[in-house]
Amino acid sequence: MSEGVEWALHSCLNLAWAEQQAVPARKLAAFYDLPPAYLNRQLQALARAGIVTSTSGPRGGFRLARSPEQITLLDVVVAIEGEQDAFRCQQIMRDGPGGRSDVDYRKHCLVSQAMRRAELAWRRELATQTLADIKDSVESRHPDAPRVARNQLDTPAR
Amino acid sequence: MSEGVEWALHSCLNLAWAEQQAVPARKLAAFYDLPPAYLNRQLQALARAGIVTSTSGPRGGFRLARSPEQITLLDVVVAIEGEQDAFRCQQIMRDGPGGRSDVDYRKHCLVSQAMRRAELAWRRELATQTLADIKDSVESRHPDAPRVARNQLDTPAR
Repeated sequence: MSEGVEWALHSCLNLAWAEQQAVPARKLAAFYDLPPAYLNRQLQALARAGIVTSTSGPRGGFRLARSPEQITLLDVVVAIEGEQDAFRCQQIMRDGPGGRSDVDYRKHCLVSQAMRRAELAWRRELATQTLADIKDSVESRHPDAPRVARNQLDTPAR
Repeated sequence: MSEGVEWALHSCLNLAWAEQQAVPARKLAAFYDLPPAYLNRQLQALARAGIVTSTSGPRGGFRLARSPEQITLLDVVVAIEGEQDAFRCQQIMRDGPGGRSDVDYRKHCLVSQAMRRAELAWRRELATQTLADIKDSVESRHPDAPRVARNQLDTPAR
């Protein structure tokens, strides 16, 4: 998994604290001293997935497209990494004894199905956790986190 | 995840059907028309992990090192892919406001912990499934699978 997932999750948290004020990519990048051009690519991927919106212009930037309660970790991971499973069945059974080219072994091979069950367990766990859950956990442990984030992002509380 | 995982899982199943008769890497490779040198690398990784044993000589080859009931899918995946999580926290919080170089954010960052929960769900699911489970499922659906495998691997039932 690329480091872009970590960057995207932390940037989404920062956007949650920015409370609908647009934050330019360069400020999100400066927050963690990340390379702005590469973070911008992750933000564009989040925009394509409908997790953030971007506006251009001198006061433009990124905002969350919906409330943190409605953004799961799976949403963010899939936006960055794509929909494909980590285990990608290459259907080697097609070349085994009795293998058939008209059978989709990604669905019929029992090894593939077993690996798929693990993938689904991973996705389920990511889908049950929202950005709001993490935001709440951070705030209960570090009550000043929202203020620190807003100061750094130059998005004063409204 | 590399295709080596798929190859290793299917090869372990074949070794289960070979019932402790040594099978050379080239026969395991020929079974699915896989490149022998690369499959051999996966088999060596399985040997280092204690999942298979190898003997040299004209009648040498690979055997399962323990019964299929005692080999989980997680054992095989970890042998091929290593112990590391898919999500590798780069601790970007160290470079954020108030970040500290003496804190291990892989343990303390709540984003990292959330991703870790998903990883554990994936591992738990892989750990609950054994090679014997898959072998039994295959045999109940395809009762001739053991015979076909033994014929192809030249390891007649004893």
